Amino acid sequence: MIAEIIAIGSEMLTPFRQDTNSLYLTAQLNNLGVEIGFKTIVGDSLKDIVRVTTAALSRADILLLSGGLGPTEDDLTREAVAETLGLQLRRDPAVVSAIERRFAEHGWKMSANNVKQSDVIAGAAVLMNANGTAPGQWISGKSDGKEKIVILLPGPPHELKALFESSVLERLRAKVPPQFLASRILKITGMGESACDARVAPIYKRFTDVDTTILAGAGEIQLHVKTRGPTAEAAERRLDEIVEKLEAELGDCVFSDNGDSLEQIVSYFLQMRSATLAVAESCTGGLVAERLTSVSGSSRYFVGGVVAYSNELKTELADVPQDLLDVYGAVSEQVARALAEGIRKRCGTTLGVGVTGVAGPTGGTAEKPVGLVFHALASESGMEVIRRNFPGDRARIRWFASQQALDMVRRKLM
Amino acid sequence: MIAEIIAIGSEMLTPFRQDTNSLYLTAQLNNLGVEIGFKTIVGDSLKDIVRVTTAALSRADILLLSGGLGPTEDDLTREAVAETLGLQLRRDPAVVSAIERRFAEHGWKMSANNVKQSDVIAGAAVLMNANGTAPGQWISGKSDGKEKIVILLPGPPHELKALFESSVLERLRAKVPPQFLASRILKITGMGESACDARVAPIYKRFTDVDTTILAGAGEIQLHVKTRGPTAEAAERRLDEIVEKLEAELGDCVFSDNGDSLEQIVSYFLQMRSATLAVAESCTGGLVAERLTSVSGSSRYFVGGVVAYSNELKTELADVPQDLLDVYGAVSEQVARALAEGIRKRCGTTLGVGVTGVAGPTGGTAEKPVGLVFHALASESGMEVIRRNFPGDRARIRWFASQQALDMVRRKLM
Repeated sequence: MIAEIIAIGSEMLTPFRQDTNSLYLTAQLNNLGVEIGFKTIVGDSLKDIVRVTTAALSRADILLLSGGLGPTEDDLTREAVAETLGLQLRRDPAVVSAIERRFAEHGWKMSANNVKQSDVIAGAAVLMNANGTAPGQWISGKSDGKEKIVILLPGPPHELKALFESSVLERLRAKVPPQFLASRILKITGMGESACDARVAPIYKRFTDVDTTILAGAGEIQLHVKTRGPTAEAAERRLDEIVEKLEAELGDCVFSDNGDSLEQIVSYFLQMRSATLAVAESCTGGLVAERLTSVSGSSRYFVGGVVAYSNELKTELADVPQDLLDVYGAVSEQVARALAEGIRKRCGTTLGVGVTGVAGPTGGTAEKPVGLVFHALASESGMEVIRRNFPGDRARIRWFASQQALDMVRRKLM
Repeated sequence: MIAEIIAIGSEMLTPFRQDTNSLYLTAQLNNLGVEIGFKTIVGDSLKDIVRVTTAALSRADILLLSGGLGPTEDDLTREAVAETLGLQLRRDPAVVSAIERRFAEHGWKMSANNVKQSDVIAGAAVLMNANGTAPGQWISGKSDGKEKIVILLPGPPHELKALFESSVLERLRAKVPPQFLASRILKITGMGESACDARVAPIYKRFTDVDTTILAGAGEIQLHVKTRGPTAEAAERRLDEIVEKLEAELGDCVFSDNGDSLEQIVSYFLQMRSATLAVAESCTGGLVAERLTSVSGSSRYFVGGVVAYSNELKTELADVPQDLLDVYGAVSEQVARALAEGIRKRCGTTLGVGVTGVAGPTGGTAEKPVGLVFHALASESGMEVIRRNFPGDRARIRWFASQQALDMVRRKLM
């Protein structure tokens, strides 16, 4: 079965507001084994809402509409759906009383326009809203010999969620075939999107019963795999098979298969090895430390570090020898090494990270262009340095560099 | 003129990813006087993309499509738009060379699937993408006697934005009727949303010809004001009037009226006063330094600082006296002061910032609950300390604290 989600409200056609209900609804529908075919955002226009509901009804089995159920003249979802379905609206006295009671309970005066919220589409089940005045509605019936379900939900997220869970979820479950759906996310670093796809496509193409989606971000690729089975266990086993093959192909470029971020994975490894970490950052300006400390409990393994932006501070706080700065310059393999070893010794940690580079947009030279970054990792057993030329603007270069630095720590401890 | 935005990618029909490009595109189109009629999100299915582009073409003057231009088999936007418009795709040798050059420049090997990105719809202008391999495309022509414009843009937001600004904006401006639209954004800190609205509502309600939108974020409120006029100057003058009244009402809580971020404003003030800054952070874990160094050219006034997460490092790197830690604890006014003064002296800067607090979710006590943060600012003329209890989760508390710390610097230099 396929569902469509329609979010109604002119404010979601401005630069300032976005539909977020559809993420929640998608998760709920996916769990029932229902996929989302399209999502549409439409303004408070009767004609436009009729247009999109008509198109959606011709394609989908289930139609979820959010918003446009309030008391104002802009709230037109009831009218539009009634028109699309060719059904009448009638005022429901029980709903009128319920709204009146709600106002009375809060000691508010009910303005006349609120009565509009009691208009119910002929044949609809009324879904009472414990968190607001506008009830939802559930309409099901045959169209062209197929069963279609249309569900009207209030727009405010907390009302929509509560109403979905109290009045929609079980009704829907009774309508859809029992489904056993399993999904997993592999996160990958140290590889480009097309290189990754070229390596994994031969695998996922053999698994025609598994949906595979590749998502690329800065310094990170995600592989989403999803499948159905006759039982929950069978679906999970099928995913185990593809995940095993994907991981064998991608090797240690896969850093997570349960949704964890790179900083969380680094956190696990540091704790597992009882290791501690300190960082000395130049071009990343605190981003590596910020990501490490975004993980709750990071004080167990991250002692801190320095943002040595000026040359003086590289010497003063991370003990970088002045002659290295004079001879090789601040952006050099030698200074990256000295930052990593200096901060490790200064802080008495197992590992020390040093990052220095040109984040741009200015400061690049022919020899040391914008995007050139040196990453060093110092440990008792020695030193590793990685030199990279990152593309993109200042923010992306800094992000790539932080990703590379964290990945060096992960690989060291793996 | 009416535009529609279509975001293409099956990942945006999952609970994990959302279209955000449409917010940026909406702002850009609105500035040209073009409203958005519908937004649709569609998966990587040729048939589905053809369906929505066909429907959109029947309604809108301008069609913006984002995503689905990459090298993988899932990337079908070119094919679908060609089919919708009844036009051929042909491989453009100039685009092939450009993609090959891009790979060569970065020292990467180009896999064969990348060539697909050189397929151009007959009659389309190719919009070269400086930040990625997939170029955009611009197609304009008559349909049913009306001019229609179809624009294909890459999905990654930084590619889409750069391409829109370099190759789409002026082309579009030449096509739409001239509009005299003026808009401004006031950014406010140190005030809650409802308090702010209560103070400004009496003003903006008198300006019925000005659109006013209030947006609240963590530690920051934005007032967006927008109006049209018979000339550009008239529209700007009208905004001057409302902005002057809003600024008079809100006083020094307004930190920017041109879209600048708080870290940019701090940057201006530090440079204007020829002042330098160093920071010693505990609970913000590098976030204050990261925000300061996100501004290009920050090395002119920001020398660096320390992330003193452990007590030992507070002493070792920022000279916090051990007895203060013993007597008052790491989260205390006294330690915040010592961090600020210690880092200022250690780095020889005009100003020193110290931040210490409980970011949570664990580590709170009855006396020092999660959300308690002390912010100190040291200067030659003395010391200021602000104690705050921030609501929210770890990420919000850290953001609030960084906002407060930067705002102290701004107010000091104002």
